[in-house]
Amino acid sequence: MWTRKGRLLGLPLTWCPSTLRGKGGDGLFKGRSNKSGLKVNEALLETAAKGQEVRVQGWVRSVRAQKEITFLNINDGSSLQNLQIVARSDLNIRGITFGSAVEIWGKLVQSPHKKQRTELLADKIRLVGACNPVNLPFKIKERHSLEYIRQFPHLRCKTNVFSSLLRIRSEASTAIHSFFKNNGFVHIHAPIITSNDCEGAGELFQIEPASRTAEKHENTHFFDVPSFLTVSGQLHLEVMTGAFTQVYTFGPTFRAENSQTRRHLAEFYMVEAELAFTESLKDIMEVMENLFKITTSHILSNCSDDVELFHKYIAPGQKERMEQMLKNSFQVLSYTEAIDILQRSTEIFKFEPKWGCDLQTEHENYLVQHCGNIPVFVVNYPYDIKPFYARDNQDHPQHTVAAVDLLVPGIGELCGGSLREERLDLLQSRLKELGLKDTYHWYEELRQFGSVPHGGFGLGFERYLQCILGVENIKDVIPFPRFSHSCLL
Amino acid sequence: MWTRKGRLLGLPLTWCPSTLRGKGGDGLFKGRSNKSGLKVNEALLETAAKGQEVRVQGWVRSVRAQKEITFLNINDGSSLQNLQIVARSDLNIRGITFGSAVEIWGKLVQSPHKKQRTELLADKIRLVGACNPVNLPFKIKERHSLEYIRQFPHLRCKTNVFSSLLRIRSEASTAIHSFFKNNGFVHIHAPIITSNDCEGAGELFQIEPASRTAEKHENTHFFDVPSFLTVSGQLHLEVMTGAFTQVYTFGPTFRAENSQTRRHLAEFYMVEAELAFTESLKDIMEVMENLFKITTSHILSNCSDDVELFHKYIAPGQKERMEQMLKNSFQVLSYTEAIDILQRSTEIFKFEPKWGCDLQTEHENYLVQHCGNIPVFVVNYPYDIKPFYARDNQDHPQHTVAAVDLLVPGIGELCGGSLREERLDLLQSRLKELGLKDTYHWYEELRQFGSVPHGGFGLGFERYLQCILGVENIKDVIPFPRFSHSCLL
Repeated sequence: MWTRKGRLLGLPLTWCPSTLRGKGGDGLFKGRSNKSGLKVNEALLETAAKGQEVRVQGWVRSVRAQKEITFLNINDGSSLQNLQIVARSDLNIRGITFGSAVEIWGKLVQSPHKKQRTELLADKIRLVGACNPVNLPFKIKERHSLEYIRQFPHLRCKTNVFSSLLRIRSEASTAIHSFFKNNGFVHIHAPIITSNDCEGAGELFQIEPASRTAEKHENTHFFDVPSFLTVSGQLHLEVMTGAFTQVYTFGPTFRAENSQTRRHLAEFYMVEAELAFTESLKDIMEVMENLFKITTSHILSNCSDDVELFHKYIAPGQKERMEQMLKNSFQVLSYTEAIDILQRSTEIFKFEPKWGCDLQTEHENYLVQHCGNIPVFVVNYPYDIKPFYARDNQDHPQHTVAAVDLLVPGIGELCGGSLREERLDLLQSRLKELGLKDTYHWYEELRQFGSVPHGGFGLGFERYLQCILGVENIKDVIPFPRFSHSCLL
Repeated sequence: MWTRKGRLLGLPLTWCPSTLRGKGGDGLFKGRSNKSGLKVNEALLETAAKGQEVRVQGWVRSVRAQKEITFLNINDGSSLQNLQIVARSDLNIRGITFGSAVEIWGKLVQSPHKKQRTELLADKIRLVGACNPVNLPFKIKERHSLEYIRQFPHLRCKTNVFSSLLRIRSEASTAIHSFFKNNGFVHIHAPIITSNDCEGAGELFQIEPASRTAEKHENTHFFDVPSFLTVSGQLHLEVMTGAFTQVYTFGPTFRAENSQTRRHLAEFYMVEAELAFTESLKDIMEVMENLFKITTSHILSNCSDDVELFHKYIAPGQKERMEQMLKNSFQVLSYTEAIDILQRSTEIFKFEPKWGCDLQTEHENYLVQHCGNIPVFVVNYPYDIKPFYARDNQDHPQHTVAAVDLLVPGIGELCGGSLREERLDLLQSRLKELGLKDTYHWYEELRQFGSVPHGGFGLGFERYLQCILGVENIKDVIPFPRFSHSCLL
């Protein structure tokens, strides 16, 4: 933290406002400034703890009173590990319970215990915020189920498992942005509100000002046209491939589907990338596989404690499954081969596998198992089941497009992508066929001014987190899940 | 780019899919793989250009035909600079015009020209996508106004100025994430859809499934309750300060206001941060000032060419104004002092400055000028004009709260923040007073389980870009602007 060292990372001292401002302004402020102090993860990592005076702030995770001494465990969200506080009996610890917020001054010393490097010998303890553990829905030393803690969206960050999840999610976001930046992609904020209404990616949410909804202005719209929450940033990224060779976006997308499965949310995050001058699905798949592997490897090495909690208590065996996925090359099957494998299997499916129909989750899971429980690319889907923008392979008799899905163990579809139809004549006739010609006039125009072969994909961020951590329910990997009948907070 | 070097950044070779997969799978793919090749910015930076064979892809920015030789300038979005291609007269360049997409193989050599380090002696040129310059709304060598190019949201990335803007925006996002990560903040995705409807931050967009809107199910809702697009992630970040000491979010926020000013959008991006164990506004302001200065300094050093384009052609004098902002400490005024300054000025205001009323843009601009055209913090606003969560200063006779706005030259309000009321009794009585007690029961509960003094702020990302680049209209710093009567694409 910068305040401890008196200056901000990489910032020349002359820019540090608190040292420069100082005089005069102070009268305006109440309260003390949050200077000095150590975070718990910093205290735990202190290699030369020799009794230096420090201050630590956080929440009490346990209180163990002995005759002469009380031990407190303190957590401040900086890591899964707690800092042990050793408090002599003459210190006032009245009111300090599981869940209270405290501030502690003391001496940081080497710990006699093997499990932790340092501990804090308290000189002074201040109760910052009390907590009545009787009313708190989480109980000390109890391991609550993910389902149970999900009922308390405003408090669940106080549990070990959910604070670990949030740290992993934050680190995963960092890793994804770094991956693209390191590989020369430009980050684009695709719009959330859009007037595109017919991409066929599922049911849409429509928006209007709250006041207007109430007054029922039926034929007027805030934006003059009906407007919706985005289902994908792809078309907007395609705009950018008119001037950039590689772009990506990472933001919220929406589906108004009345589904309550463990893999669906009404609001979820997608990572989408688009590559210009790309003539082979292979290039797209290479980015998908590398994104998966490099991001995962980053998370495993930067959040090892947090990931271990999931792999140990939530999904035993997941660690080994992850290693399998990382060390092997992802498999590749054509859609036609996939259907063939499904038809030849002895498995009884609810939906009969048939050329020309979409793969169901049961089919996806079978294919992944069939390939040895590692991720599988399925390529070249039937022309008729993919959206208008997928590039025509012009093959026959089985007419396909250059589309790809990535299926992963335990989840099914994690990514979907395709080459996009860059040939104006083919695009025009398909749009006409589908009655979309007027709506996508601008999209056609992209093919008239220096059009290039291009393609891209989208990865469901929550499904990705489910996949690497082994979390069953998608609602447990997002801070505030939204699904039909539920929009808490 | 990774494909050129045959392996991905930081990735062991054994993970590289294209080298491992190879056999067998190839039959599935059409088209050639996008292997080898150099980006324009890489080609320009090549210090040891001695005729090595390379391939470059991009769009033609100019064609200059001489008797023996044709010069092409190629841009691929990797930088503002173009790569000069030298084409002998025996090469086929039929159909290659301003705007076409091309692929060129040749030898990279030192350039005889001062302005560029390298140029490409072409051996082969392929027209990838033609362009009829007559139909393209942008003309070669013409400098179009921002207002003009704004009419073509699907094509404007093809202009120098807008591709520079997009690179700067991408780099600014990176800088902001780095700032928070380097300083120990955890990144939280605050929800976009929320059931909070009364924060008083402006008019809301309401959402329902498109099918439901049409069918006019009046008293049922997809989420069972009315739901809206977020105006701020603050309350959700406050949830997280129950377990993390520093959190932030960076995402889209929305206002359904019918305003068409140069500073307002219906969809815009906010950076919001929240700090636990914070008892002074000063700590919040320190983060605001450092975020501004460090991010700006990062952009200036990583996007110097792109920024220079704005400072030279769009906003002359902006460079010097930026330097002023960066090298001086931001000023601090209390709201009461600010009103006093405004009342004593000889300026004629449209709105009379009066204690107890909000500052208008004209007031904000006057205060910034009064302080020497550097950013100014205004602190301690009247209790009655700030939202319920602002912390009561319990002063009198002029009752204020610990809130702060940051005003910047040319823009006015860039950031707003406050300490939050962490004292349960004061919060409860205020919520009761405002009739919000039932809605914010969960928010009250945050104050019952280890509540800590905390505070935070939000920064308008587009206004920030306007401020550093000197761009007059907010619609010119976002890829796809949404405002009343307009939602193109």
